[in-house]
Amino acid sequence: MTVLATPAQLAAARAARAAYRAGESVPTSGVATGLTQANLIAVPADWAFETLLYTQRNQKACPVIDVIEQGAVESALAPGSDIRTDIGSYRIWRDGVLAEETTDARAAWAEHPDLVAFLIGCSFTFETGLVEAGIPIRHQELGRNVPMYRTNIDCTPAGRLRGEMVVSMRPIPARQVADAVQITGRTPAVHGAPVHIGDPASLGIVDLSTPDFGDAPEVRDGEVPVFWACGVTPQAAIMASRPPFAVTHSPGYMFITDVPDAEYIV
Amino acid sequence: MTVLATPAQLAAARAARAAYRAGESVPTSGVATGLTQANLIAVPADWAFETLLYTQRNQKACPVIDVIEQGAVESALAPGSDIRTDIGSYRIWRDGVLAEETTDARAAWAEHPDLVAFLIGCSFTFETGLVEAGIPIRHQELGRNVPMYRTNIDCTPAGRLRGEMVVSMRPIPARQVADAVQITGRTPAVHGAPVHIGDPASLGIVDLSTPDFGDAPEVRDGEVPVFWACGVTPQAAIMASRPPFAVTHSPGYMFITDVPDAEYIV
Repeated sequence: MTVLATPAQLAAARAARAAYRAGESVPTSGVATGLTQANLIAVPADWAFETLLYTQRNQKACPVIDVIEQGAVESALAPGSDIRTDIGSYRIWRDGVLAEETTDARAAWAEHPDLVAFLIGCSFTFETGLVEAGIPIRHQELGRNVPMYRTNIDCTPAGRLRGEMVVSMRPIPARQVADAVQITGRTPAVHGAPVHIGDPASLGIVDLSTPDFGDAPEVRDGEVPVFWACGVTPQAAIMASRPPFAVTHSPGYMFITDVPDAEYIV
Repeated sequence: MTVLATPAQLAAARAARAAYRAGESVPTSGVATGLTQANLIAVPADWAFETLLYTQRNQKACPVIDVIEQGAVESALAPGSDIRTDIGSYRIWRDGVLAEETTDARAAWAEHPDLVAFLIGCSFTFETGLVEAGIPIRHQELGRNVPMYRTNIDCTPAGRLRGEMVVSMRPIPARQVADAVQITGRTPAVHGAPVHIGDPASLGIVDLSTPDFGDAPEVRDGEVPVFWACGVTPQAAIMASRPPFAVTHSPGYMFITDVPDAEYIV
């Protein structure tokens, strides 16, 4: 499919990227509605093949939608963009440890000019379809970041990379859970259908109220916790595998593309 | 989804791989019905990242379903298999030129022990679904290989790799074309919906009766030529990009996996 964004959507995406470039830093759920958002992981060239292989072997969590090669900084999904500045918050990783959060990653690219950047589909992409179907997105309603959890699901290793799957959670009214499965299942390139529904314990999640990333959820009576594979999964791989250097987005602070969500509907 | 093959299916797949290992060489459309078949491209390690990037950028034609790393010969999709022997016919490429066709690629792996092998989804996978829907598969009926064509659609380059998209063609009765689109659209990991329907000339195909790969088709009155992206596309990239060495399957002679087609249904 080749779906074109509307002028209003493109203006919203460009304004958001410009604001983040100027230093604004907010979670992006609900921003530039209808356009695809992306997770970032950038690694030195020496780790690029293994990273791409890791995403191929764990496509549900790590669906790659663009690769920005060594020496380049513009994504094909957002003409005029600069991956070093156009995300609201970056994480700089050294030897698998979070060393810094920053709104500007130009120093990181200057330190490692051979970084290869991978953009990975984000579940914020399918939230528009959920909202249109009358399914409430609690973290949007509350103005919070989506809650994300590390799980006991091991990803398939690739070379030096290993780690567990990270999931995002949305509480869904029980009568709408099947709709949520079908709507999100149509977009396999942005995590697709949920990986788990209704039993946090079997994912190894002890306490829903203390997510590993993002903000605490509010699960109301009659709602079921529904878990989708999450593009923060590469950050768990960084922690477990300890590459010497890496740059990621901060969870919930995504890269906004110019590509309509509909492009990824099967 | 995790779908298990039946014992009968697994026996058929293992028997087919054993026969090819022993030297049998036949097109595989219709073999081990219900199990996924795969295209092969293997390149020296120095070309592996660019090849994986090329497949990521051209997923419709090159959906990777497994990567066999340097030093390994067994696919995770077929325990006990040996990628050097278990395909009925291989092509050995030198500097972008077809140097040899052989039923045994062990000499190629001995010459280049650093080969990395990519298995790419094949449209034979969705033929079972078409047959079950009462849509005739002409090349199966005639005991021929599927016709494949080079097109004027350029793939997105990756590093040193470039080339045009190759398509497979099936003549479909006009009243069943929409069904064929919907059935194949459910399996985006094995080429998904057609890339083109009904007008060979707009793909740059001058004469349907002389395919670039496979056997001539037989298009009957009331049938429309329907074109799907084809996993022979990497072979067009080899011809255009001239890597020093590569191994592929011969078009139509696929690698048979133990994975049910249903695993790839969205």
